[in-house]
Amino acid sequence: MTTPACVIGASGYTGGELLRLLAMHPHVEVVLATSREYAGKPISYVHFNLRGFYRNLRFSQLSLDEVTDKCEVVFLAVPHGVSLEIVPKLYETGLRILDLSADFRLKNPEDYKRWYGREHPYPDLLEKAVYGLPELHRDEIRGARLVAVPGCNATAGIFAAAPVVREKLVDLDHLVIDVKVGSSEAGSKPNPGDHHPERENAIRPYSASGHRHVAEVEQELSRLAGRPVRVAFVPHAVSAIRGALATLHAWLVEGVDEARVWRAYAAMYGRERFVRIVRSGLLRYPDPKYVIGTNFVDVGFAVEKRIGRMAGFAAIDNLVRGAAGQAIQSMNIMMGWDEATGLYYPPLKPA
Amino acid sequence: MTTPACVIGASGYTGGELLRLLAMHPHVEVVLATSREYAGKPISYVHFNLRGFYRNLRFSQLSLDEVTDKCEVVFLAVPHGVSLEIVPKLYETGLRILDLSADFRLKNPEDYKRWYGREHPYPDLLEKAVYGLPELHRDEIRGARLVAVPGCNATAGIFAAAPVVREKLVDLDHLVIDVKVGSSEAGSKPNPGDHHPERENAIRPYSASGHRHVAEVEQELSRLAGRPVRVAFVPHAVSAIRGALATLHAWLVEGVDEARVWRAYAAMYGRERFVRIVRSGLLRYPDPKYVIGTNFVDVGFAVEKRIGRMAGFAAIDNLVRGAAGQAIQSMNIMMGWDEATGLYYPPLKPA
Amino acid sequence: MTTPACVIGASGYTGGELLRLLAMHPHVEVVLATSREYAGKPISYVHFNLRGFYRNLRFSQLSLDEVTDKCEVVFLAVPHGVSLEIVPKLYETGLRILDLSADFRLKNPEDYKRWYGREHPYPDLLEKAVYGLPELHRDEIRGARLVAVPGCNATAGIFAAAPVVREKLVDLDHLVIDVKVGSSEAGSKPNPGDHHPERENAIRPYSASGHRHVAEVEQELSRLAGRPVRVAFVPHAVSAIRGALATLHAWLVEGVDEARVWRAYAAMYGRERFVRIVRSGLLRYPDPKYVIGTNFVDVGFAVEKRIGRMAGFAAIDNLVRGAAGQAIQSMNIMMGWDEATGLYYPPLKPA
Amino acid sequence: MTTPACVIGASGYTGGELLRLLAMHPHVEVVLATSREYAGKPISYVHFNLRGFYRNLRFSQLSLDEVTDKCEVVFLAVPHGVSLEIVPKLYETGLRILDLSADFRLKNPEDYKRWYGREHPYPDLLEKAVYGLPELHRDEIRGARLVAVPGCNATAGIFAAAPVVREKLVDLDHLVIDVKVGSSEAGSKPNPGDHHPERENAIRPYSASGHRHVAEVEQELSRLAGRPVRVAFVPHAVSAIRGALATLHAWLVEGVDEARVWRAYAAMYGRERFVRIVRSGLLRYPDPKYVIGTNFVDVGFAVEKRIGRMAGFAAIDNLVRGAAGQAIQSMNIMMGWDEATGLYYPPLKPA
Repeated sequence: MTTPACVIGASGYTGGELLRLLAMHPHVEVVLATSREYAGKPISYVHFNLRGFYRNLRFSQLSLDEVTDKCEVVFLAVPHGVSLEIVPKLYETGLRILDLSADFRLKNPEDYKRWYGREHPYPDLLEKAVYGLPELHRDEIRGARLVAVPGCNATAGIFAAAPVVREKLVDLDHLVIDVKVGSSEAGSKPNPGDHHPERENAIRPYSASGHRHVAEVEQELSRLAGRPVRVAFVPHAVSAIRGALATLHAWLVEGVDEARVWRAYAAMYGRERFVRIVRSGLLRYPDPKYVIGTNFVDVGFAVEKRIGRMAGFAAIDNLVRGAAGQAIQSMNIMMGWDEATGLYYPPLKPA
Repeated sequence: MTTPACVIGASGYTGGELLRLLAMHPHVEVVLATSREYAGKPISYVHFNLRGFYRNLRFSQLSLDEVTDKCEVVFLAVPHGVSLEIVPKLYETGLRILDLSADFRLKNPEDYKRWYGREHPYPDLLEKAVYGLPELHRDEIRGARLVAVPGCNATAGIFAAAPVVREKLVDLDHLVIDVKVGSSEAGSKPNPGDHHPERENAIRPYSASGHRHVAEVEQELSRLAGRPVRVAFVPHAVSAIRGALATLHAWLVEGVDEARVWRAYAAMYGRERFVRIVRSGLLRYPDPKYVIGTNFVDVGFAVEKRIGRMAGFAAIDNLVRGAAGQAIQSMNIMMGWDEATGLYYPPLKPA
Repeated sequence: MTTPACVIGASGYTGGELLRLLAMHPHVEVVLATSREYAGKPISYVHFNLRGFYRNLRFSQLSLDEVTDKCEVVFLAVPHGVSLEIVPKLYETGLRILDLSADFRLKNPEDYKRWYGREHPYPDLLEKAVYGLPELHRDEIRGARLVAVPGCNATAGIFAAAPVVREKLVDLDHLVIDVKVGSSEAGSKPNPGDHHPERENAIRPYSASGHRHVAEVEQELSRLAGRPVRVAFVPHAVSAIRGALATLHAWLVEGVDEARVWRAYAAMYGRERFVRIVRSGLLRYPDPKYVIGTNFVDVGFAVEKRIGRMAGFAAIDNLVRGAAGQAIQSMNIMMGWDEATGLYYPPLKPA
Repeated sequence: MTTPACVIGASGYTGGELLRLLAMHPHVEVVLATSREYAGKPISYVHFNLRGFYRNLRFSQLSLDEVTDKCEVVFLAVPHGVSLEIVPKLYETGLRILDLSADFRLKNPEDYKRWYGREHPYPDLLEKAVYGLPELHRDEIRGARLVAVPGCNATAGIFAAAPVVREKLVDLDHLVIDVKVGSSEAGSKPNPGDHHPERENAIRPYSASGHRHVAEVEQELSRLAGRPVRVAFVPHAVSAIRGALATLHAWLVEGVDEARVWRAYAAMYGRERFVRIVRSGLLRYPDPKYVIGTNFVDVGFAVEKRIGRMAGFAAIDNLVRGAAGQAIQSMNIMMGWDEATGLYYPPLKPA
């Protein structure tokens, strides 16, 4: 007996990644995969990696009735704004919804307005939606019907900063998060900035005057700190396909030393199956290279005693932990399954 | 009840890949992983990707007694020449041996002498060893005690050419195989040619006057054709970490058209679970990019009617299908398990 | 006193490369740079590398009258087909024309028809146009008014094969040219196949049933051999931005040995300032990596005595020697200047 | 009449880059190029890019007498510590010395001791040495006999921060500089961390507890600010061969807005020929990709009004502006030549 699932927006990178991961999930069968552009085509027409998988499934046009009839779990891998049109209708039917867009991530409607430029039309749903970062919201996810899966840059940033922010070990008024991220983050649609000759070898800041993901980061860090927290947040496009590294730069509160920081990371992540603390071996700090293809988050930190500062690091695969994998982890929790079901396997090296 | 396995030479790329794949294998447990350099260190000290896996295992010094005592299956991921010292001793004990070196691949001792520059000290074992390319030698592998796992460039070359050579659809006196391969092929030891600034962006021929893998290719294609076959074989280092593409260039025998070539590929690979024939969709020819991390072989071809020629293609991950994955596929066959056990999952995209 | 030049189609990669190289040319000043899309914008709006150069020039709409009034030399860096509309009009005015499109490369109108799918509307101009590969057509270029600059893959292929084909040292009925090329070859317009996540790490054959550049290669090799020559020609997209390597695979005529092949390469290229024969040092064969940004062609070869075959190699930067640089080299010849003017400087390493 | 120059340590990346750039310099001839490892070999044996250049020069063993006899200018491209043994002897002879090591960069002997772990043996020379960042020390360089060429990460960091630090537009107690840099920075010697399969795709922090270059950054920024300045400085190895981007994160002093920051950058760099301020066009922020191979520094910034912070950016080629190019720029100044001699040509695009 498997649970029937639907992927709405299945032809993009996030949609493809959901299909890849769900192909390995023992309790789920994907029965619908929608795509406006490729309706009627086999899955492998677009997702070359999936040749030999999903032989009996083709992309179809979205029909909400069909979704409701056939599925128990729905993943939305659609652009921001599109979920706003779909989620409210699906929510009423009682389906389990995992929305990978940004539409339901911010709890405060005013934050939504500031960052997305319009009033949120469903503030009640904002309230019901759970921010789907399992290590922070496991209990709420358990009972949720709507999970808003975090953004990739936000996920990395939160993981890097959470332990020391929660325990107020650092100056909360001067937090910097500098993110480096691969090209798949921008999606599968060709565009000038991601044209190979322009994107390869790039080390290129973007959205440097204010990236939307900072709203999620500030929301979560503020909640952890119990006070408003603002973050100087700048993402950089670097030369990789997958992977995101967040570097937290912070000043230590008087008296906090390396051992104290270590305890904070260990206290928060020591028992988490998908979080690995990097402290020794030939590689001393996290590098997304060694989590590619998986749901792992590698975290670590460094302290410079001389000037009382620290750097915190979190490395993820932006399409897995930053999107599809984190969604499936949340689904596992919602469905009462082991949280790691279908997700626990080692990354590649070299990758 | 799992089968205890040993990986000799576990700190290199091939050894690490065996550990990665065996961590997902339901019937096998790795109980020994040897490494001269890293004996005593945790597995993740070297294999950062395996943090959180193999927590109770450390690299150890090789002791043949310990191997014999503890293991039923042994993988050798050691340099060429080293297997010659180990395999004969292990063979007597009745263990199942999968040797990933080149030491037992060539059936003809004279070929060995020509390409490796010395007499083979164990010609009797050469005879007993089975060339571990399952799609060509499945029945022999089933009863084998010693499997010589093919080289990565050879594997790709053989897959590209086998169907049309077997059916003699092409001029067997003018076969060219041009291989393009990623940097992991050269192993984990730093060297000037694979230093990042020199290796990245390279399009560099090597061993262009005669690459050892051609001996394997000629051995297998000659066997299929029932006559001696020689191949013009040139590998090229290109800019990728994993992946090998073999391009066969050949002239079609009079009267052979595209449909006939298609039937040859379909006849040989149509029922193989790990071989995928690429003919349509947005990607028309195989590209190793879309098999990375897996044991799949993507094959395809093109015919230029104008001048009566064809190109055949085979794309593999050199560390999986070109080494560790193919070894495990053979092990599955030797042990009487389903051939795809622990190996059947989709590749990444984008990768 | 500088010669005024115009670049038509100046916003693409080839156009940008002409602007870059002409900025260093002591005898030429670019007075017009046309672009439909960017007319009115500064040059550096598109060509970020040229910030600080061409401060007084902006892209303009194409006006043939303006071109005729202002320029003595015209470079066309426009898509195939567009040159057909412009060149005939400019030709009458007596301007020196360097056309980087494919429109005037094939001398035989029937070849044009076969490969480009329509009758050539100006067969008389085909006759007058000179194929702009200076090392083969220096004398004709000297007196030419219209130079058809060779394609990048064709340039590499011709350089690899010319010496041994000219001297008939190889079996002319079984020539293979396998090309590997970087992403800039496909131009600056975003498209699905060159989207970074899909293009990076690719080892992807294309146009494998017949690439148009083979027509140029066969035209030139046939001329050199004095008999019709056909070539099995397959290009592959590999992971690099710039660079093309052509690998010739051929069978040696009885009695031809390595020394004989060497003499053929030396005889043809030994005195050429832009052709470098690679035979020794730490790098034994040509690699485009070490000609990036320049007009050099690195050539080399390998002989496998065992089976009487050879491989010939030619490495170029596809945008310089495969387009803009070769055009400027031809211009230098047309204008009676030293052939290397503005083009002779060393490549980068590492690059 | 050219000036004879010597490159000590000419076989590494910095040495090779000096040879490449000096080959284009109209006033300099390299008459000596020393290398312990490659003495006796032609230059192109190691520097494949330089085939056809320096035909009459071979690497030689270092002899200080020979240097003194033959040269007027000496470049030292040797590891840290080695310059300490050579510079004092050469200094006495009155040669112009450009030292690319770190040995004479820090003015304060105590800083040297802290960061390099021993007493500086020549504190008097520290005093005489000029920190060779021409845009900051042009006048001192003019009269100098010993120039200490800045480190690459330091150069980028200083350029990003200098304008706003000098005018005290930002909170000087909370400065962060996050650097991303390509693999050539680590030199030409193979090592595990820069082995291609490990280095490609990496996003890897290093020296995160205190990188030596921060000492140079703090020295220069303190001087500009007229008070001690400390910097949180973390470099990251990213996937590129050349290129370094420094990102300054800072909080704006009350009342400072975007226009004010712009004026600070314009005041400092507006007339500098090698510094280009990026503010508009399709690319809004600096990216080292578009300065590769050249001595340019592209700078830019972003202001986030919401939380009163800014980011400043500086992009360089680490081997040119971060080493050999900056050395030659200083040499030009020392010799009284136009500062841009031999260095002013446009970068590649795409690169």
